[in-house]
Amino acid sequence: MQKKEEHMGKHKALQGAIAAFASVATLGALAVPALADSASTYSPNGKSVAELAQHGGAQRIAAIGNKSAKNVVLFIGDGMGDSEITVARNYLKGVNGHFDGLDAVGQPGALDDVEAGTGQYTTFSLGSNSSDSAVGKDGKGNLNANSNPGKITAVTDSSASGSAWATGTKTYNNAVDVDVYGNPQLNLFELAKAAGKATGNVTTAEIQDATPAVLESHSSERGCYGPQGKTDGSSNDAAKRCLVNQLKENGGIGSISEQLLDTRADVTIGGGSKYFRQTVQGGEYAGKTVWEQAKEMGYQAVENDPAAMNALEYKEGQPVLALMSDGNMPTKFNASKATAKDPSKDANPTVCTVNDQWLGNQGSSLKDMSKKALELLNANPASQSNGFFLQIEGASIDKQDHAGNACGQIGETDDFDQAISYVLQNVDLSDTLVIVTADHAHTSQILNAQPAYALSTVLKTADGNNMVVSYGTAQEDSRDEEGGYNGGDMEHTGTQLRIAASGPGAQRVIGLTDQTDNFYTIAGALGLATTTDQQKALSDNAEVKVATENGSYAADATGFNGDAVLSYELKDKSGNVIAASDSTTPLSGVRVKTAQTTAIALDKVAEGNEYTLTVTGRQSGKSVTVDFQAPAAGSSDKNADKNGVIASGKVNNNPKADGSPLGETGTAVAVVAIAVAMLAAIAMIIKTVKITR
Amino acid sequence: MQKKEEHMGKHKALQGAIAAFASVATLGALAVPALADSASTYSPNGKSVAELAQHGGAQRIAAIGNKSAKNVVLFIGDGMGDSEITVARNYLKGVNGHFDGLDAVGQPGALDDVEAGTGQYTTFSLGSNSSDSAVGKDGKGNLNANSNPGKITAVTDSSASGSAWATGTKTYNNAVDVDVYGNPQLNLFELAKAAGKATGNVTTAEIQDATPAVLESHSSERGCYGPQGKTDGSSNDAAKRCLVNQLKENGGIGSISEQLLDTRADVTIGGGSKYFRQTVQGGEYAGKTVWEQAKEMGYQAVENDPAAMNALEYKEGQPVLALMSDGNMPTKFNASKATAKDPSKDANPTVCTVNDQWLGNQGSSLKDMSKKALELLNANPASQSNGFFLQIEGASIDKQDHAGNACGQIGETDDFDQAISYVLQNVDLSDTLVIVTADHAHTSQILNAQPAYALSTVLKTADGNNMVVSYGTAQEDSRDEEGGYNGGDMEHTGTQLRIAASGPGAQRVIGLTDQTDNFYTIAGALGLATTTDQQKALSDNAEVKVATENGSYAADATGFNGDAVLSYELKDKSGNVIAASDSTTPLSGVRVKTAQTTAIALDKVAEGNEYTLTVTGRQSGKSVTVDFQAPAAGSSDKNADKNGVIASGKVNNNPKADGSPLGETGTAVAVVAIAVAMLAAIAMIIKTVKITR
Repeated sequence: MQKKEEHMGKHKALQGAIAAFASVATLGALAVPALADSASTYSPNGKSVAELAQHGGAQRIAAIGNKSAKNVVLFIGDGMGDSEITVARNYLKGVNGHFDGLDAVGQPGALDDVEAGTGQYTTFSLGSNSSDSAVGKDGKGNLNANSNPGKITAVTDSSASGSAWATGTKTYNNAVDVDVYGNPQLNLFELAKAAGKATGNVTTAEIQDATPAVLESHSSERGCYGPQGKTDGSSNDAAKRCLVNQLKENGGIGSISEQLLDTRADVTIGGGSKYFRQTVQGGEYAGKTVWEQAKEMGYQAVENDPAAMNALEYKEGQPVLALMSDGNMPTKFNASKATAKDPSKDANPTVCTVNDQWLGNQGSSLKDMSKKALELLNANPASQSNGFFLQIEGASIDKQDHAGNACGQIGETDDFDQAISYVLQNVDLSDTLVIVTADHAHTSQILNAQPAYALSTVLKTADGNNMVVSYGTAQEDSRDEEGGYNGGDMEHTGTQLRIAASGPGAQRVIGLTDQTDNFYTIAGALGLATTTDQQKALSDNAEVKVATENGSYAADATGFNGDAVLSYELKDKSGNVIAASDSTTPLSGVRVKTAQTTAIALDKVAEGNEYTLTVTGRQSGKSVTVDFQAPAAGSSDKNADKNGVIASGKVNNNPKADGSPLGETGTAVAVVAIAVAMLAAIAMIIKTVKITR
Repeated sequence: MQKKEEHMGKHKALQGAIAAFASVATLGALAVPALADSASTYSPNGKSVAELAQHGGAQRIAAIGNKSAKNVVLFIGDGMGDSEITVARNYLKGVNGHFDGLDAVGQPGALDDVEAGTGQYTTFSLGSNSSDSAVGKDGKGNLNANSNPGKITAVTDSSASGSAWATGTKTYNNAVDVDVYGNPQLNLFELAKAAGKATGNVTTAEIQDATPAVLESHSSERGCYGPQGKTDGSSNDAAKRCLVNQLKENGGIGSISEQLLDTRADVTIGGGSKYFRQTVQGGEYAGKTVWEQAKEMGYQAVENDPAAMNALEYKEGQPVLALMSDGNMPTKFNASKATAKDPSKDANPTVCTVNDQWLGNQGSSLKDMSKKALELLNANPASQSNGFFLQIEGASIDKQDHAGNACGQIGETDDFDQAISYVLQNVDLSDTLVIVTADHAHTSQILNAQPAYALSTVLKTADGNNMVVSYGTAQEDSRDEEGGYNGGDMEHTGTQLRIAASGPGAQRVIGLTDQTDNFYTIAGALGLATTTDQQKALSDNAEVKVATENGSYAADATGFNGDAVLSYELKDKSGNVIAASDSTTPLSGVRVKTAQTTAIALDKVAEGNEYTLTVTGRQSGKSVTVDFQAPAAGSSDKNADKNGVIASGKVNNNPKADGSPLGETGTAVAVVAIAVAMLAAIAMIIKTVKITR
């Protein structure tokens, strides 16, 4: 016992240190909840929950086998555990067959002498198992980031797992790129854009679904699809689906769809077009649909049109947003139905058939979409100069596994494999790292005989033999009177699962790693900022310019690349705050447009008066303060340069050298070119009163 | 369709070629069964069943990453799929914890700069799913090796999987080191002994259980434990458990226990002592117990005595046979009971407790046994000169998973991990390759909530959280009236699973391989004979000496190291066959004692007459013919040397150079020293009439 007590003593000290660190990091956001049961969360070999909740806290590997890659393509087979891979291979190729794409990645010798590696990783999540979106539901509009942050959840959902590889931070089921305390964690798209790289996001799911969402947004609830929630636009259930203070009309950074537009990936192709038909509820585009917002923001928008998707070409400053279906895309194979044990199934094994509704029939298979994404990225000068990060998700392996639909999950694995195969043949593996993995394991199991407990489907495999696929994890019995499967919902499973990689740095996946290590593998290969300090430093060159046009005032913030959310405060000459961003939750404030200009409307400014504006990156803690005087009435252009800029400021990272009494701020009136066209787009509503709903 | 037809045409041609090859290879054994449904067994990417059934036919990888190792330690966690590993880690160490042994193997950097690799392999088997021991049950005593050799079985049992890594040949469930046609395949112990290496076999199971058995024996049925079958010796059910022609009294090579003694591993430690209390039914030791036979053969025998096991020391020519329990060893943890869904389980999660009966309490944990095995091997001059091959099995992970016993499988994984950890600390990883893998995946799944269909146990993990372990694969519902688990039998599952390695050549396991590749990885690292031609060549120096003592005659065969079974034929001067081995089945004949002397009794020889003896290795096809004349009555020593040898012969591998009209035989009367003591041990019954029962 002596040894254990010593360990626990050390552990408690560590927790204290980490809690203190976390308090600083969250910068005025929620205080770190006390871990009331810290003693009971003691882990003999592993880390405490408080440690695991830190950025990088769940990493298992040190930096080994690191090599640089210009590009990374990350393939996520959602729910594609080793069992799902084997089910599909047995059915499609035979037990000794191989997938041209899926099995080639990580296979030494399969792709000439390219570096290759395979391993397993752990996928657990933290906090309570809040699949019911308990977050933000305390009835007061305050963040209730996690109903039980001191817990560990053995089985992850797609949002916690996606957040893990997208940000390197373990979080709770239902979280999108926020930690267990609700604080945004920078994701791979933000970091790639900060490094000047091109970005692409392809999925067969709704583009707002967790796996693509983790590259587009920070949301305390995965269901916060659009400004009106998860509806087709005919109603508004945002209050039910979103943390209310995340909504733009309440001074928040907006829904997943809206943040997708702010993130501005170079290529976005998936489903979920109906959520873009919702009506924007706050900010500059209030009253317009999200599609209309996208077009006004310069996107090449394609809605449910495979031919138009295939015709897309790279155009400078016009990123691609192609959503091919209202919801998730139809599956490649028609559904099969898992049923209770029945000997007649052995005599008549199921053969899967292609679904007429599959978009691959119209030129929009996952391979087709991946091909287009690769073409667009390859034509992009940013990509040519600095490389790209592209994520491609085979989303419905998971969704059909949930539904006990063996044919469905097999067809989706086939579609996924063909996308991988295409990419392998069309990238240069000497400078492109290709990773194939899954976000979590799933329910389907391969048996020789039908089980008595679980539902099952007997399939006739490619080599002419019967294979039983079993589904037994649903929380509610959903058999109908005939013993047939009647809906219900099979569950994810918590086993460690496969990660495979080919290309520079691929051997970093060998051994047992954690899902958060994948963030470090990708970010490390691409040379992105991985540590919290490196990420904060991305805002070292932040700059804010106050400009005017036709009597309106706005601040344009650039260079806050180490931040996801900005706060600001506008004071008058007397020091009274006359406008400020909401800071009720970590998702309140202004969404940073990484590597772009983030505009803050200053519509309380009165002509002729003097002001001090302070803009702070909520993740980096870096601030810029600008003192300015609004031109007197009728002289709006007098103090402004040709672009309307009347004052600007930069982060002062070295207060002593500069001697400024303002500390970590600076004042300046440097003239910098800024497009008036961008100014015209500024209309962020300043909220001085918190809206609660 | 054109392409498919072309492919199938080529495929059929290949099948023909392979069938022809197989016919030659089996050398008078069963003809290769016609693959009636060869068209329907067509596999688009993979190989046909006929191809897969060949030695090495299921290999997925070419020779890559090969390095030489002096020693190999193979750890088999029986039924230890990735899910079972994660269940145990979560419970014992916490989700972020790690196993000191299990997780260190394959982990780059965990063992200094030792080469490390991890991957997955496929585990399918061939033939019908004959878990009911259909083999040999055609009622005629003829081999019915496999009721459906044209089939593929998606889920392997432990015997087909063990045979796969022990021999490199895919076979049917229930087979021990025989192919789907019933032909013996040389295993790693035979090949290691042929190369002069020491061998060790450690398990927590009965030593006759499939996983240890594949290193000791060739048996068409895994249940053929002893000369009286699978009984405690009080009855004889051998006819039910064994292919009858495999039994010694019927001219066969004998049961698994008897062959274990013939194989003569340097170290054998496990359970199953009760089967050694059976009575030998045929051959020299008929009427004695197998324990008595072992002692007469020079074994250091220990029965159910941990202290005696721990006191064992290396003694030249006295291999160790220590069986620590009557059957399988008691598990480390007391059993838990998977039950139907019940919310009260969540409120009172199960905590596992140590079993009083666990032999680890008496100094016979798997770690203790592994320690002893390593000590004995390290003291062995063969090991010091030529290295060793040691297999260590954690057997009851599988057995408790079958029983829906979460605590049981977790405790066994713990025991297994500690054995690995000990070995890692006590071998030189610069010349020792350590591999950790499983023979097949199993049923247990990790869930966040209790399932409605499957039975489950809610466990309190090391980090204080609930984890649901679900069991849903039993073929029969075994819930009792209270919904409790009432026996039944959960099933293996067919997913690809983990293989991990550290040491020279470890990176060969990276990627997707097949279980048969593990044979090539191990045999390749140790420099053993892997191809059929290399293995046949191991009998190139075979020699047979005919000797006499006190009027008895016997032939001593040495150097048939490329064979598992010998046949012989004794002809008189007129060419009449007066004695011959049985050849009804591939397991009929004389069991080769690899790298030792295999004795054949010649008790039909009459004084003064002339004879021709032909001894043939049934696997290599190599023959030795010896012409000899039995000394006239009363002159038994006249033609004999001081060791009683009256004639001898060698394989003639180069008939042309030697010009001998006898082709692949030779005649000689070279005098070679041979111990009379060994002659005295000869009493193999010659069968000229086939016995059928």
